Amino acid sequence: MSAIAVNGIDYLRDARELTDRLLDRLMPSADTDPRLLHEAMRYSVMAGGKRLRPILALAAYEYCGGSADEAEQTIHKAMASLEMVHTYSLIHDDLPCMDDDDLRRGIPTCHKKFNEAVATLAGDALHVLAFQLMAETGDNAVVLELAEAVGTSGMLGGQMADLEAEGRTIGRDELINIHTRKTGALLRGSVRIGAILAGTDNETLARLTTYGEKTGLAFQIIDDILDIEGDQQLLGKLVGSDTKNQKATYPGVIGLDAAKQEARQLIDQALAVFDGEEDNVLRFIAGYIGQRNS
Amino acid sequence: MSAIAVNGIDYLRDARELTDRLLDRLMPSADTDPRLLHEAMRYSVMAGGKRLRPILALAAYEYCGGSADEAEQTIHKAMASLEMVHTYSLIHDDLPCMDDDDLRRGIPTCHKKFNEAVATLAGDALHVLAFQLMAETGDNAVVLELAEAVGTSGMLGGQMADLEAEGRTIGRDELINIHTRKTGALLRGSVRIGAILAGTDNETLARLTTYGEKTGLAFQIIDDILDIEGDQQLLGKLVGSDTKNQKATYPGVIGLDAAKQEARQLIDQALAVFDGEEDNVLRFIAGYIGQRNS
Repeated sequence: MSAIAVNGIDYLRDARELTDRLLDRLMPSADTDPRLLHEAMRYSVMAGGKRLRPILALAAYEYCGGSADEAEQTIHKAMASLEMVHTYSLIHDDLPCMDDDDLRRGIPTCHKKFNEAVATLAGDALHVLAFQLMAETGDNAVVLELAEAVGTSGMLGGQMADLEAEGRTIGRDELINIHTRKTGALLRGSVRIGAILAGTDNETLARLTTYGEKTGLAFQIIDDILDIEGDQQLLGKLVGSDTKNQKATYPGVIGLDAAKQEARQLIDQALAVFDGEEDNVLRFIAGYIGQRNS
Repeated sequence: MSAIAVNGIDYLRDARELTDRLLDRLMPSADTDPRLLHEAMRYSVMAGGKRLRPILALAAYEYCGGSADEAEQTIHKAMASLEMVHTYSLIHDDLPCMDDDDLRRGIPTCHKKFNEAVATLAGDALHVLAFQLMAETGDNAVVLELAEAVGTSGMLGGQMADLEAEGRTIGRDELINIHTRKTGALLRGSVRIGAILAGTDNETLARLTTYGEKTGLAFQIIDDILDIEGDQQLLGKLVGSDTKNQKATYPGVIGLDAAKQEARQLIDQALAVFDGEEDNVLRFIAGYIGQRNS
């Protein structure tokens, strides 16, 4: 078993701090050439964040009985990889030609702090490093999982569909499709990667995949809700940006109350995969996602 | 032995056509969702080009006695991967915030044909697909080779250093350092990946690494020369763009004649790794690079 205490809030904090340490250790130093590029990568990655993807991967790894002895060469590298690939997607998403956001994780976005060229390259460099670290686990299956999660059938396909939907009226099914890919695919992938690295059986992997899908979609619906109701200070980014960018959002399509209800249902469906089992961290995380305010 | 005739010009043509077929087969169809993104990826990848990286990988694979039976699952996937990662780098490099180029491979650049957002995502998507295909070879070592070739110690580091050098006077050593990373690293990596997939021994790998380094640097020096002396029609891109962008170039730093001489010396050094051996395709390719006009 992991040394991390199985106690909700403590677990999240410890896993987040572990992620921060891993990222710091596994990213090139800002003193090594190309300095400016490494500085920009570090600026965006070390700006904090919930570290939800690495935490989900770790919790899934532990749920599936992953070895603590092998953690350093497997799940720890995957955790850093997942946060890097997430950060790369945020950096590119924030660019002027995309969502044109000025604030992220409470500080200026990468292209605001540096410039567009550096931000583009820093995103690309985190993208490479994410694949490198995933390959360093020695398990090809998780490299393929990562590619599927962030490729055109996953995250990038969702970002493209999201851009194409701007200013257009879309229905609930199309929105679910966008959200499932844009955000859901990498959250689902994070859970699966943790489980695969632990060498889990197919039945457990299938259950955790359902868990990842449900929490992933709930996460993005709540993101939409927080863009309306959230506290800018807690979120570390400007609220109302979806409206500004004429983004398709869940509250916009089905209304705020219905969106909240749907998020709750998805969390319940995620929790249902653990029916009849002892309490566990993944269950806590789903509940946390359901109630998050940042 | 490969079915491809070992006869210089024929070999290049056949290998280029094989690469085109592989790319067409291994890229998502423009009819599948997200259509616009797939269309943009195909637009840039299928615009042609010398396909030098896949050809180098194939030639190295065959030189090292790689199995023809396993080619489809190994070297062919690696070939497509290398061309995709190269194309992604061109798409991002051409963006307005980077080199701001309008023409590439004889047609409008990706962001000119589509828009900046689509071009950014299309580059990202080719980047993912390149890693996916490399992982599909089942050999983790070549995934790590690719990451090293295109990461901050390779291609991206070179692009960053290239941007930082704009408008500044730099010396020969710094320029070699930029060129070696910006272009040389992926050409070197292509040769190494072909050799590794063939399961070659360390001594041969070391010799081919030298070959890849020397031809890689020669290639970029000749690229600089062609930006001054080349035929726009043959090159498929605007000449003089280095001067326009105040790029550090070899002729700019040591003069045109000295640049030509240095390229010739590098080609000779590349050829020297085959001293005393029968003629082979890699030797032909080095000679071809030394004399190319497009």
